[in-house]
Amino acid sequence: MTNISETLSTAPGGAAGPDVLRDLYADWSEIMAATPDLTIRLLRSLFDEWHQPTVEPEGVTYREETVGGVPGIWCLPQGADGSKVLLYTHGGGFAVGSAASHRKLAGHVAKALGAVGFVLDYRRAPEFQHPAQIEDGVAAFDALVANGIAPQDITTIGDSAGGNLAVAIALSLREQGKQGPGSVIAFSPWLDMENKGETLATNNDTDALITPELLEGMIAGVLGDTIDPKTPLANPLYADFTGFPRLYITAGSVESLLDNATRLEKLAASAGVDVTLSIGEGQQHVYPFLAGRSALVDDEFAKLAAWYQK
Amino acid sequence: MTNISETLSTAPGGAAGPDVLRDLYADWSEIMAATPDLTIRLLRSLFDEWHQPTVEPEGVTYREETVGGVPGIWCLPQGADGSKVLLYTHGGGFAVGSAASHRKLAGHVAKALGAVGFVLDYRRAPEFQHPAQIEDGVAAFDALVANGIAPQDITTIGDSAGGNLAVAIALSLREQGKQGPGSVIAFSPWLDMENKGETLATNNDTDALITPELLEGMIAGVLGDTIDPKTPLANPLYADFTGFPRLYITAGSVESLLDNATRLEKLAASAGVDVTLSIGEGQQHVYPFLAGRSALVDDEFAKLAAWYQK
Repeated sequence: MTNISETLSTAPGGAAGPDVLRDLYADWSEIMAATPDLTIRLLRSLFDEWHQPTVEPEGVTYREETVGGVPGIWCLPQGADGSKVLLYTHGGGFAVGSAASHRKLAGHVAKALGAVGFVLDYRRAPEFQHPAQIEDGVAAFDALVANGIAPQDITTIGDSAGGNLAVAIALSLREQGKQGPGSVIAFSPWLDMENKGETLATNNDTDALITPELLEGMIAGVLGDTIDPKTPLANPLYADFTGFPRLYITAGSVESLLDNATRLEKLAASAGVDVTLSIGEGQQHVYPFLAGRSALVDDEFAKLAAWYQK
Repeated sequence: MTNISETLSTAPGGAAGPDVLRDLYADWSEIMAATPDLTIRLLRSLFDEWHQPTVEPEGVTYREETVGGVPGIWCLPQGADGSKVLLYTHGGGFAVGSAASHRKLAGHVAKALGAVGFVLDYRRAPEFQHPAQIEDGVAAFDALVANGIAPQDITTIGDSAGGNLAVAIALSLREQGKQGPGSVIAFSPWLDMENKGETLATNNDTDALITPELLEGMIAGVLGDTIDPKTPLANPLYADFTGFPRLYITAGSVESLLDNATRLEKLAASAGVDVTLSIGEGQQHVYPFLAGRSALVDDEFAKLAAWYQK
């Protein structure tokens, strides 16, 4: 074992404060910069640490299952209404992240909303390109409905690339003439497959993780050389939002993808969608990962719950 | 992001069978061989995948807490007897692994035994050398007793290096004149800090993870240049087991550390300890990680539960 004498700052868990998400992102960024030949295999290992900023939610049990052919983890808060389902698509540029990395976050959200959550291990890029991820989400949605869950009691929800998927799954269901989810929730959605947007530049110094170069690699992974980055289901900023379900969006004020959230809000609102945007002041990409560790996330989830139960 | 076109075999979770632990070890070994400059930082990220072979245990909730100054995760099976505590020290050569990597395994064991588990994030090597890990275990044990748990209702339990700690914590408590745990459980304990033992050679071809070189690095990390590898609390094969609590040991028949288990059994038995050794035929290092995925582990846990409740 090499470099065993290298020192580290802290043990996992413990008394880490709300800076822990930014610190983790800064650490990942440093590793990616220092290791230009980092394989996708090791990048997946690294990004599975995404669970670390989140405190274990109390009173939640878990169950692995395959739903509509898609493996995943059920998050089952004690006393939750099992007929209300959050279909959670994790972030990670369509390429990294997993049900395991997002289990605790989804558990917190499910608990706050009084629902159950199912976190999908959808097929990831680059092994599987667009629209495999959406197909998996739709397959799981269809299976839930076939199992007796009412479509309007399903919420598609996700963060970052998974926020894109939460929107795209709803768009895809509409395109197929099916009844879609009752609500859609997107934490820091990443939508712009043309890799544009002014906050990429204006928040570049404050965002501890996202860079145009990182996004470029992820876009290449999920779209390859042949898929147009303006494809509405890959890039919902080109989609028609007429008749879209009510939509709740969060983003951090200092993150590079902030204007993905603001552009989505504007687009949905102009199509008459009931849309709410909540911006976390000073917060990083997918700041709900600080659940259990941040009063700001507690407040955000209380707002989200009031919206959800309305 | 580099090497995004590299393909991987399977998604996490899903329908993986009992070969998944061996496959994960083989994959780690390949990565370690291919990446001689792998940092301890990335090695920790990699070994936190140890949870992957274990299926989420159903009906278990979790709670993070600091006990006796040591952070960790409570595993709380629904209906378990909260007065019976498994104090779980995770494996990983004293240097890697975490409460997070062992949460599901500890949850399965707690559920099988009808007890609650607390998985310690003890201070790891090389930042903290022997006996910091044992001190953390003793501090947590003392705090449990101070909180009203009867010592005989506490079981020290761990795997690999954590199996060493489960034994050493009990030895240390006795040395301090305190009442120790009622039972000790060690899965594939790693005890021999002189890096000897014939199964290192005879099982070298069948063990998918452990090599003398890997162990050598871990020994250097935890003992440094100054601590004698024959120190009884660092290497319990040099300890006096007179009056030691009843002891349950498991090991895999094809693993390199098999004779750490058999030597421990012989040593304990010769000191009059009530000791049970259960060897999993054809199994790898810490095969209980296959909990939820392997009938053999189900059977092993049923045997362990019968022993525990006796």
